[in-house]
Amino acid sequence: MSKAASAYVDGNRERFFGELDAFLRIPSISTLPEHQGDIERASEFVAGSLRAAGMEHVEIVATAKHPLIYADWLHAPGKPTVLCYGHYDVQPPDPIELWKSPPFEPTLRDGNIYARGSADDKGQMYMHVKAVETLLAVHGKLPVNVKFLVEGEEEVGGASIAKYVAENAEKLKADVALVSDTALYAEGIPTLCIGLRGLVYVEVEASGPMRDLHSGLYGGAAPNAVFGLVEILAKLKNAEGAIQIPGVYDDVAPPAAAEKSSWESLPFSEAAFLEKEVGSTRLTGEPGYGVLERIWARPALEVHGIAGGFTGAGAKTVIPAKATAKVSIRLVPNQDADRVVAAFRAFVAANTPAGIRTEVRVLSASPGLMVNPDHPAIRVAAAAFAEILERPTVFVRSGGSIPIVGDFANHLGIPTVLMGFGLPDDGLHSPNEKYRLENYYQGIRTIAHFLEQYGA
Amino acid sequence: MSKAASAYVDGNRERFFGELDAFLRIPSISTLPEHQGDIERASEFVAGSLRAAGMEHVEIVATAKHPLIYADWLHAPGKPTVLCYGHYDVQPPDPIELWKSPPFEPTLRDGNIYARGSADDKGQMYMHVKAVETLLAVHGKLPVNVKFLVEGEEEVGGASIAKYVAENAEKLKADVALVSDTALYAEGIPTLCIGLRGLVYVEVEASGPMRDLHSGLYGGAAPNAVFGLVEILAKLKNAEGAIQIPGVYDDVAPPAAAEKSSWESLPFSEAAFLEKEVGSTRLTGEPGYGVLERIWARPALEVHGIAGGFTGAGAKTVIPAKATAKVSIRLVPNQDADRVVAAFRAFVAANTPAGIRTEVRVLSASPGLMVNPDHPAIRVAAAAFAEILERPTVFVRSGGSIPIVGDFANHLGIPTVLMGFGLPDDGLHSPNEKYRLENYYQGIRTIAHFLEQYGA
Repeated sequence: MSKAASAYVDGNRERFFGELDAFLRIPSISTLPEHQGDIERASEFVAGSLRAAGMEHVEIVATAKHPLIYADWLHAPGKPTVLCYGHYDVQPPDPIELWKSPPFEPTLRDGNIYARGSADDKGQMYMHVKAVETLLAVHGKLPVNVKFLVEGEEEVGGASIAKYVAENAEKLKADVALVSDTALYAEGIPTLCIGLRGLVYVEVEASGPMRDLHSGLYGGAAPNAVFGLVEILAKLKNAEGAIQIPGVYDDVAPPAAAEKSSWESLPFSEAAFLEKEVGSTRLTGEPGYGVLERIWARPALEVHGIAGGFTGAGAKTVIPAKATAKVSIRLVPNQDADRVVAAFRAFVAANTPAGIRTEVRVLSASPGLMVNPDHPAIRVAAAAFAEILERPTVFVRSGGSIPIVGDFANHLGIPTVLMGFGLPDDGLHSPNEKYRLENYYQGIRTIAHFLEQYGA
Repeated sequence: MSKAASAYVDGNRERFFGELDAFLRIPSISTLPEHQGDIERASEFVAGSLRAAGMEHVEIVATAKHPLIYADWLHAPGKPTVLCYGHYDVQPPDPIELWKSPPFEPTLRDGNIYARGSADDKGQMYMHVKAVETLLAVHGKLPVNVKFLVEGEEEVGGASIAKYVAENAEKLKADVALVSDTALYAEGIPTLCIGLRGLVYVEVEASGPMRDLHSGLYGGAAPNAVFGLVEILAKLKNAEGAIQIPGVYDDVAPPAAAEKSSWESLPFSEAAFLEKEVGSTRLTGEPGYGVLERIWARPALEVHGIAGGFTGAGAKTVIPAKATAKVSIRLVPNQDADRVVAAFRAFVAANTPAGIRTEVRVLSASPGLMVNPDHPAIRVAAAAFAEILERPTVFVRSGGSIPIVGDFANHLGIPTVLMGFGLPDDGLHSPNEKYRLENYYQGIRTIAHFLEQYGA
């Protein structure tokens, strides 16, 4: 990166930290109505910091729920436009008693900032603001056109931003989006995420008798809603973990040979993954696929929860009338979410036992996504990342879903650079969430360098 | 029955009703600590009514929980001894808003007494007291020796009476027990129950990863406790409903040909059973067995409840760490409860999927029971019943369990006459519980007649 920009970041370390500290002190918990005032304070903080950085047309956009912040700087004619995305809302801190320092009083320990939202996503979105400030301060202008769109509902489904993106495609027009809400593959390894799984999420409800029946008087003759549901669910996968819904693997695009072989060179210990991350006696999943391929590039069916009948203390002998399960299928690129929903519905209908009625309710359905690693923005991002961290950039996928990336692809027709600086053990959504302080400065440098190079 | 006894019952109808009305007004709900005073009032009511009837040695026995009432009249040397059992505690009335008249203000409608406990069991146990009163009033003595043992914990597991019976076998010595806590097969049909199923009740807990995991990041590689549990449960029965645990049917004693053919002559409509009682589209169960045989004389495995993972509103993508199910197996005569428990444990262990750990906790284990229909007390009871109702007595079984009958068999070595006067639609444990008033008087007559004949 330019020497001037580098010197500016060095010279403002304490102020950059102090501002982030103030941002993290606002308990902008989007799920809890009593924090409405904090949500507003956080949105004003973001707007104020964008103005201070030199961004223009800074706007707090009212929505049906929590405000969005829009800003732009569009004085680089002929240069590409980058749309920076982040979110200022955070998860609740519960269970509060497990925090070693209060979640909204940022505390430095061992080079980490401990605070709710430090990694997810305040600490990461604020890097974008500081990178732009740095470039405007030292050059008086930006190397590319930049737009910001920051939301306050990421932890509660993001409905308002999805609507806003769909309705404001012209205003948000850009060449690429930049999202910093992911992690390095491991400390010190520059990492770009180029694939995300999609998600079909459904509820399956089974009904048996018209009301809970006495199992002494009816056991052996009356259908049981819990058992009926269990019978259906057990057929969804075989003993090895392969999904049994006909056609569900038909459209799966396998990873290219080069991508797959690059995964083999990543540092990965299956034993450590089993013991330290999963904490069980054995991993599961489709035979013939490695762990990274199974979680990144293969569909996965999970039952997230199940409830039915009597679940209190002691013994009650009912034949339950109703039972419900939450089920999802993670999708990989080239799978069509609607086709998978239809296949799931047909499978449940075909496997519903006699005497049981079933209903499938679809809560969400979004496809998997791939970013072409040869897209100019990705190539520039990979090179900039490698230069700052002084190691080759690796391309990974995530098995999770980031819906906004799909919205950018669908409504704006643009790819997203997923350039995050978290670490796998940051504890997102958990007590003692942390963000490595050095990664905060590294992120500001890398993003500034990327913008410089992308506009060069 | 003797003309004098019959005339006495006729001449005291209103008083007999008034006393039951007063008894039903005491809300002796054994599950709720705030009704402790009502439990004591009810126990005193029972003791007072036994004294008034002419019973001797009336004793309120303190226990670890709710008091028992003991009484006896032992002046019929050379005659058999009958041990009358009943319970004065009742179920909570919830949901209270569904009652047409208040649960503890007995109301007469269409010849029925509507009140909590009217059929289960105050109205039925009080018939024993009134039958004894009638015989003592008209003859100055009883035709047999009689003991009473009445409890206040039937609806909460009956631990105190079980302990008392085990520890007081000599005091409670009798030739037969008499229990009126069951129903006529249908209105007007004299019915003796001669078989009860036993019950093995267990909790199965499955553990997968050490904590709930994010299904995006781990889905496809980490074991899922809910799915693991579902896989085990689904293997417990085949699609037709036959239990798949090896050996579980080995010791089943089939009903004798005569008993089985007698069931075929009972009025039974499978269509009405399915539509009005079960309320589903199809019955389930082992092929080759009729409905009555399936619910009375075959083991039945049911899952009573299941819980695990996320079950709130909306979508949460966890791979659950734990899941629990409540499972029971109803046992029929000649099955050994401990052998069935061992077979269940072995089956769960053998079918626990890789990566899952399971624990089976046994909550109760009691065997099924048969009373020999040729026992003298049963033959006399059947004849007395038939004379009062003017129809032949039918012998049925119940698919449920009455643990005290097992305690009487094990500790006192005596059979039980299960002579109940309820009706299948009395709504035990439900809102608008009722007891047919005419059955109350019929019950008093039948019991008095049975005691007269048994002592003749």
